[in-house]
Order: sequence, then C-alpha cells, then structure tokens
Amino acid sequence: MRTNRRVVLAHRPKGVPDAGHFRVEEVPAGSPAEGQFLVQTQFWSVDPAMRGWVNDAPNYLPPVEIGAAMRAFSVGEVVESRHPDYAVGEMVSGMFGWNRFAVSDGSDVDRKVAERDLPASLALGVLGLNGVTAYFGLTESCQPKAGDTVVVSTAAGAVGSAVGQIAKILGCRTVGITSSAEKMALCRDQFGYDAVINYREEDVAAEIKAACPDGVNCYFDNTCGPISDAVMTNLALGARITICGTAALTDWDPIPMGPRVHRQLMVARAQMQGFLVLDYKPRYGEAVATLADWIREGKLSYAEDVLDGAERAPGAIQRLYEGKNTGKLLIRVD
Amino acid sequence: MRTNRRVVLAHRPKGVPDAGHFRVEEVPAGSPAEGQFLVQTQFWSVDPAMRGWVNDAPNYLPPVEIGAAMRAFSVGEVVESRHPDYAVGEMVSGMFGWNRFAVSDGSDVDRKVAERDLPASLALGVLGLNGVTAYFGLTESCQPKAGDTVVVSTAAGAVGSAVGQIAKILGCRTVGITSSAEKMALCRDQFGYDAVINYREEDVAAEIKAACPDGVNCYFDNTCGPISDAVMTNLALGARITICGTAALTDWDPIPMGPRVHRQLMVARAQMQGFLVLDYKPRYGEAVATLADWIREGKLSYAEDVLDGAERAPGAIQRLYEGKNTGKLLIRVD
Repeated sequence: MRTNRRVVLAHRPKGVPDAGHFRVEEVPAGSPAEGQFLVQTQFWSVDPAMRGWVNDAPNYLPPVEIGAAMRAFSVGEVVESRHPDYAVGEMVSGMFGWNRFAVSDGSDVDRKVAERDLPASLALGVLGLNGVTAYFGLTESCQPKAGDTVVVSTAAGAVGSAVGQIAKILGCRTVGITSSAEKMALCRDQFGYDAVINYREEDVAAEIKAACPDGVNCYFDNTCGPISDAVMTNLALGARITICGTAALTDWDPIPMGPRVHRQLMVARAQMQGFLVLDYKPRYGEAVATLADWIREGKLSYAEDVLDGAERAPGAIQRLYEGKNTGKLLIRVD
Repeated sequence: MRTNRRVVLAHRPKGVPDAGHFRVEEVPAGSPAEGQFLVQTQFWSVDPAMRGWVNDAPNYLPPVEIGAAMRAFSVGEVVESRHPDYAVGEMVSGMFGWNRFAVSDGSDVDRKVAERDLPASLALGVLGLNGVTAYFGLTESCQPKAGDTVVVSTAAGAVGSAVGQIAKILGCRTVGITSSAEKMALCRDQFGYDAVINYREEDVAAEIKAACPDGVNCYFDNTCGPISDAVMTNLALGARITICGTAALTDWDPIPMGPRVHRQLMVARAQMQGFLVLDYKPRYGEAVATLADWIREGKLSYAEDVLDGAERAPGAIQRLYEGKNTGKLLIRVD
C-alpha cells in the first residue's frame, strides 16, 4: 500500500497564507478505478494565484476547502493506469495538488510532457502555465511590435523573466522592474533586459521616464499597486497594458484605492486588459512547442528555486509574496 | 467693414470655467488674404472638452491663450473667398472658435456641410464630433455585438444619446445613466433606452445589477468617478469599457483616487480603452453619411438646447458641467 504525503489547508487565511495555515499529513494513496490512473508527483508548483484560491473573495475558481489537499499544479509519472489514454511511464502535468500520489481521470491533466529531453520541472515553469502565460499574455494581449519598449514587473519571476525574453526575441527593448540587487543582476545577465529598476530603492516613475524616453508601449503588469501607478505616468500613444497579476496588493476586500487611470488611458488612447491564461487552454500546445524550441536553441533561459520536501510547502506561498525566491518556486517531492 | 463679436478667455480657471473667466468683445472682422476665406458662423458649440482646453494640465492640445477667442467648434457660411476650394455660399464646420466672423485657410475646417436638407446646427452635434464620437467610440472601441447589454453614462447628452440609439440600431439592449427625471423621460421616450438610472437618486450599483442580469458587456464611459465605479462592479466576461470622457471629475491635478480597477478587469478579462475621436479624422465622412441616413430614416433622434446670443456663451461650459442642459448645448450667434 502506497502512502500519500500531502499538504492540506488547515485554516482559511485573510490575505497571504503562511505556514500555519497548512498541515502536512500522510494518508493511504488512492487506487485508480476503471478509467482512472495514479500519478506519482515529482515537483509541486508554488504560484501567486494560490493566495486567491485559499481566500473567500470572488475568484474564477471556488476556494479550496478546509482539510483538502492544497490546489496546485504538479508534474509526475503515471505509475498505475486503468485509463486507455494514459500509460504507465508517461509524464503528465496538471492540477494534482500538493499530493505525493494523486488519482486522476484525466480531467485535471494539463498535458502529457512530451519533451523528455528537458527537465520535468520545466513543465511547471517556463514550459508550464508560467511560460504559457508569458507567451499568450505578451503576444495576444500586449501585442508588442518590433522596436516597442516593453516594461515588465516581477521581471525576474517565473512569468516576468519569460515575458522579458520573449519580448527581446520579438525585437523589443525591455525594461524590468524587480526587488533586489541579486534579481537585478539576474535580469541583466541571464534574462537580457536592456534596463532594470529596483522598485524598493529607486524612484520608479523617474527611472521609467529615463529608461523609456519615448514612453512605454507595452506594460506587462504582474503587481498592480505603486509600481504600476508609476508606469502609468509615462505611457506612449496607443500603449497596451496587460493585467496578469496583482501581487503587490494582497487584499481586495474592500477594493483598495489608487490613482484613477482613466485620464492617462484617454490621453494616451491606451488599452488596459485583464488576462487569464486558462482562456487559452486549447492553444497551450502551440506555446509549449515554441517555448521548448527556444530553450533548446539557447534563446530562452530560466531560473528555479527548488525547496526540498513536502514540509517546505506550507511556508512557500508566503516566501513567494515576500519576494524571497529567485526564479520559479518549486517543491521537490520526497 | 464687418464687426466680429467674439468671446475671449479673460482668466485661466482651475477646474470648470464660469462666466467670469470669459469676456465678450467686438473687434473688426479680418479680411481673407489669397488662399483664405471668411466664415460667418451661425452656431457655436459648447463641449465638455473645453474645460481641458482652458486648463494648464497636460492635454492633447495646448491651452487657449489669455485674450484669445475661445477654441470651439462652430458652423457657418462662407461669405468671402480667395481660396480655390471654398466658394461663397458653402457651409463649413470646423474649429472657428467663438467668433462671429473667422478667417480660415481651410486647415481648421472639419468638413463641408453637404446635407443641406438637415438643420445646420446638426453639424455641431449629432452630425458633428458628438455623433462621430458616438459612432466610432461605440463601433470601433466598444465593439458591441447584437444581444449585448450596453451601458451609457450621460445617457441623454449629445454623445450619450447617440451611443444609446446606435447600440439599439445594432441590436443591443441599452441602459442609460442620467441625472434628472426630465432626462430619464427623454432617455426612455426619445432615445429608446431599455432601462434608465438616475444616479443622483438611485443606488447605481444595485440598479445596474438589476438592469443587467447577465452583466455589462459594453460600457461607454463619459463620466469616470462614482458612476463608473458602480458599473465596474457588474462586468460580464470579456466586457469592453470605452473611456470617452471624465465629466464627473473636473480636476486631474493631482490625480484623484478611486477604487483600483485591476482585479475587476482581470476577473472579467475585460478591456478598458481610452478613446479620442480626432484619431478617426480620415474616416469622419463615413460616420456622417451613415448618421445622416439614420436621421432621415427616423432611426436616430437628437435633442438641442440652444442659447441665444454671444453673451450666453461665457456661462455655458459651467451650465454643461452642472448638467442643466437638455440635449446638445449650442449658442445661436446673433
């Protein structure tokens, strides 16, 4: 009998969950019925969206129930199968949660991981929703043209680092906003940003103005809050702003106040658009194939911050929101 | 020698200009040189944008100078011409200002008024920038589909009333937001709105929710401020918000605070876009021809609020911002 080591939601947080909101436990692993299969996960993902999933505020998914395994993306190998489409030995990524062993009927599978020449963990990062978010958010929503200046917040993060590099591949100038000297170096040396701003130590509006003398054509917004307010003061005519995340503001009930964007949008005839990668699910394969080729060609780089063991998972979301991770935050499952 | 009765900017206001910021004066009318012509205006326009034109805040045009005739759209007849393209007797509309007589070289002409079967004043309203703004702002920026619910603020105004009616022509449900019982009746009886909300007496968010059970697909925003904040709480998936004006907020220096829109845009995957009709100048003719046909066919109605005489012009912008006008506000030139 296999044992499923898992991490469950113990208490409902208001705002960012910390280690105390979760509990590590061991329960017997399930057995696949006809039409199901068993996945042994190798990596669990830690994503900003998880804050929303455990809070009660309206969201695009219902909140995780108390006592249930934390909703999460993970990647692993099929170790038992009574499902005609999934064979033992295949790698799959999907919403298997923070479970060492998960029974699936295929409905929670994102995709089979075909690129076995690349590390499995990439299926949760640059070849997972982070990379796919960067790809569609930038190409479909921001729609940069060659020569455009593209500003990215959380520039060294799992999504931001891919956005910056894809923009460079498309012929844009890139300006990254990040939070430490270490991440600034990563942005310059590994991710190729043309200019980098440390929002914790610099006047973001002044630095954006200096780095974008012709204004900001595209802003890929992962933060909302004061960083975004600063970018909004320097829009180019026809700017496109993609709102992909609101990591800087952890509580939306009540809605926080900020400078009204209406006149800036009107003067620049700019567009601000909300983006959710799940809307592009039928097209994930197209993005993954392109991103994998860029990795193989050495055009697309990535950084990972891997925590070892399930007991590191409970504090991981807080670590993410404190900006302590460098690269895609993952749990390697023991 | 002709005398030009004109209204000049006497003092620079902060916010909405009132009668004291202008001065009526008489000066000799200019004489057209070679390549110029003289227009005798019949109607002057009063538009919300004029507040921006007299203030010092950054705008898409430089501020009107103290002592200069107020920048304004007007319509009139060519009474002298030394310009090959403009013949005496032709009607023209353009940026001739609050001048009884204006010399033009054609660069400030919006268009020749060819639809002589319709009143000349329409060239400043439903067949002028107001109608063209409604036409392109709705069809190009909001992009309503048949069956969509379209919400319009300043629903009885010169732009809003055309937006609401064009949306109906395109097969949409329309919900108008306005400021008095008189305007509510106008919205229902003359402009055909399916539902009307009085923002001064009703809970706009609750009324929007009741009037738009499937959410707001399109919001044509002429006001910004609390009215727009209320609409934002009830967006349908994929909603389009066109920011055409910010009449509810008269001072943008410093930028006023309001509820942040980012999460609402993200949850609804909605789009918010600034709109300026001047970007569509090469296509005005297409809009005017369509709008004129709709008027002739009885599908498109309009309301005018005509003030008689130049001495009514100085207080007119304030009248507009106080919402005292019913229909397009015009000065009939004496």
